[in-house]
Amino acid sequence: MLAEIITIGDEILIGQIIDSNSAWMAVELNKIGVKVKQITSVSDDAEHIKEALREAEKRANIILITGGLGPTKDDITKKTLAEFYKSGGMVLHQPTLDKVASIFAKYNAPVTDLNKLQAMVPDNCEVILNENGTAPCMLFRNEDRIIVSMPGVPFEMMALMQDKILPLIKATYNLPSIYHKTILTAGIGESFLAEKIAHIEDSLPAYIKLAYLPKLGIVRLRLSTVTGITPETQQEVAHFAKLIKNEIEDFWVADEDIPLEKAILNLMDTHKLTLSVAESCTGGYLSHLLTQHSGSSSVFLGGGIVYANALKVKQLGVSSQTLDTYGAVSEETVTAMANGAIKNFNSDYAIAISGIAGPDGGTAEKPVGTVWIAVAHQQQTIAKKFTFSNKRLQNIERSAIAALNLLLRLLKQHQA
Amino acid sequence: MLAEIITIGDEILIGQIIDSNSAWMAVELNKIGVKVKQITSVSDDAEHIKEALREAEKRANIILITGGLGPTKDDITKKTLAEFYKSGGMVLHQPTLDKVASIFAKYNAPVTDLNKLQAMVPDNCEVILNENGTAPCMLFRNEDRIIVSMPGVPFEMMALMQDKILPLIKATYNLPSIYHKTILTAGIGESFLAEKIAHIEDSLPAYIKLAYLPKLGIVRLRLSTVTGITPETQQEVAHFAKLIKNEIEDFWVADEDIPLEKAILNLMDTHKLTLSVAESCTGGYLSHLLTQHSGSSSVFLGGGIVYANALKVKQLGVSSQTLDTYGAVSEETVTAMANGAIKNFNSDYAIAISGIAGPDGGTAEKPVGTVWIAVAHQQQTIAKKFTFSNKRLQNIERSAIAALNLLLRLLKQHQA
Repeated sequence: MLAEIITIGDEILIGQIIDSNSAWMAVELNKIGVKVKQITSVSDDAEHIKEALREAEKRANIILITGGLGPTKDDITKKTLAEFYKSGGMVLHQPTLDKVASIFAKYNAPVTDLNKLQAMVPDNCEVILNENGTAPCMLFRNEDRIIVSMPGVPFEMMALMQDKILPLIKATYNLPSIYHKTILTAGIGESFLAEKIAHIEDSLPAYIKLAYLPKLGIVRLRLSTVTGITPETQQEVAHFAKLIKNEIEDFWVADEDIPLEKAILNLMDTHKLTLSVAESCTGGYLSHLLTQHSGSSSVFLGGGIVYANALKVKQLGVSSQTLDTYGAVSEETVTAMANGAIKNFNSDYAIAISGIAGPDGGTAEKPVGTVWIAVAHQQQTIAKKFTFSNKRLQNIERSAIAALNLLLRLLKQHQA
Repeated sequence: MLAEIITIGDEILIGQIIDSNSAWMAVELNKIGVKVKQITSVSDDAEHIKEALREAEKRANIILITGGLGPTKDDITKKTLAEFYKSGGMVLHQPTLDKVASIFAKYNAPVTDLNKLQAMVPDNCEVILNENGTAPCMLFRNEDRIIVSMPGVPFEMMALMQDKILPLIKATYNLPSIYHKTILTAGIGESFLAEKIAHIEDSLPAYIKLAYLPKLGIVRLRLSTVTGITPETQQEVAHFAKLIKNEIEDFWVADEDIPLEKAILNLMDTHKLTLSVAESCTGGYLSHLLTQHSGSSSVFLGGGIVYANALKVKQLGVSSQTLDTYGAVSEETVTAMANGAIKNFNSDYAIAISGIAGPDGGTAEKPVGTVWIAVAHQQQTIAKKFTFSNKRLQNIERSAIAALNLLLRLLKQHQA
């Protein structure tokens, strides 16, 4: 079963917002056996929207539309859908108007005429009540096709998908189950991985597909059965996953589709280990990666964002002498930071990062992109120097991922 | 001048990665007066890629393709482009092979056969050397159209766009200049804003367009001249921007297109003010928002990620009695955290956040989504309770934005 996603809104086409909705929708659709054939972003333009709908209807049975439903004047999605699906006109949807009123009441705000307009819908659509916002969700049916128009606000769209639309799709179509198994690897590049397991990949049966999904510092290997699930195909996938694991032991991190930091949290949680951080150039990004996961508090105690040197001294007990002699970006300082974190924050493990994220602050000796990372256990500290790029955000991300990889190595040593 | 972006790769269609490239490309294209008509994500499938190219060529002169150039077997982009643009066959591009060799030499890694294949290109394309990776960038010309295929790795694509492709586009086409002026507002919803300035919007001349770009906690208002720039149109845009500013004084943050935290950093930098943070439930996200901006170190000293209560005591001097009596998520604790940050980190202003991000940890009295935020100046502390959603990441983001809004209010009071 094929679906297409159409996102409507100039804000995507001028790059003001990144379309993160589509990726989330694709993941949820895949889980129920619906394949996304194409994702199309079009402008707030009636003709362009109609053209996208015509094209999508040629390829897919399920068309999910997000965006273009805000209260302001530049939104024309609803009128266009009414025309395209030959509605007799717009009618008031009282439950939506009541919802709008209740939401504004909650904020003691008056309902504006613009907001009232949001409760008007094409007379031939089925309205799916949006519990979290003022824009209605509209369902159209065309032959055996389902076309759903949702607001672009992520949490409104997510709630509608989870509570109403995914169940509706499951109830409407007879869907095959697709079986994915993902292997998370770290510390090896895509092409080396491919060389290492080429013989396994070549021996895969036609109905098992292997995909490489590289990301900063990690590569995901995804085995998928292109046919439906049977106990046999699942066993076969498990069999090949095991072959791959044995082949790449050193780089194997987890056999589920989770981020690197989540795999580390799981590993540390299993062994009842705690972690603290001392972040300078990453400025909280590493802590954010860890704490975005629920349950992280059982492993992650916290730490210091020690941007200013004064805080490196105050929070981590790094000596001013060390800072003056070797500089903030040095093996000596980052080692002192990691040991200070272990001591002051009383954790089993600690990560310390100090570098020059850029674009300014580089010197001939320590150019932008120079980053020192230390990971410490109560009895051991490893420090490593990295030389990344001249791009600030990239240096922040790479530093965090490199630190996680370094920690993983230390953890593996101690588990071994 | 119209462009279309085509992203190739199953990883986008199964939601494994979010397409952030397209937004970045759209922003850069807009700056040079190129409008993005459509963004299309298609699968690693020859027919589907050709169909997308056929459709795009009907609408646009500039077609920018990203992705589908990795070294592994699931990539077929190059072969398809060769067929579609009637190449006589694939040829070795020696400079690309040399680049591949030099990159692998840097990591003391052997060049694999897979990597060597990356240096093969259609004989009728112009190769643009990719300085940052192993995949070549290929340029095809079809009548007055330019078609460019780039790797999907963001920093490789960005370098190619900035150094080679954007200059090439400027040199090839006679482009109009588009003039945007963005007004950043915070603390007011899109529809209220629209009501407040409806009379100004109605009085806009036909060649000035106003767009509302809402995002968590902020709304950007963008005035654009749909025709080219003249001194007169620029003056007119400035005139209307001023009218809007006067109308929404209290909610006006900046008259440039920058994130809320950057506007705050700029304001504090101008007044030589420093900031520290004490983050519990936001776990470093607020610090990351601030430190992703170069120059943030002149304002932001750092702070504490105080996930565990022990760290709230150790780093911020919150008394165990306060924690025991009122709990970690309380006015008393968050106030003590903010004052502790001012004192221990020696900053002019501090932000403290403590809440229940969820999905677990909620109680009847303090449900998931309950967040206390305090902002402090040396002489004053304001604390406010927020009740957000049951979604963890959303609570983290909203808490950070709410905290920034609260800080902005305090800063405005002191500037006033």
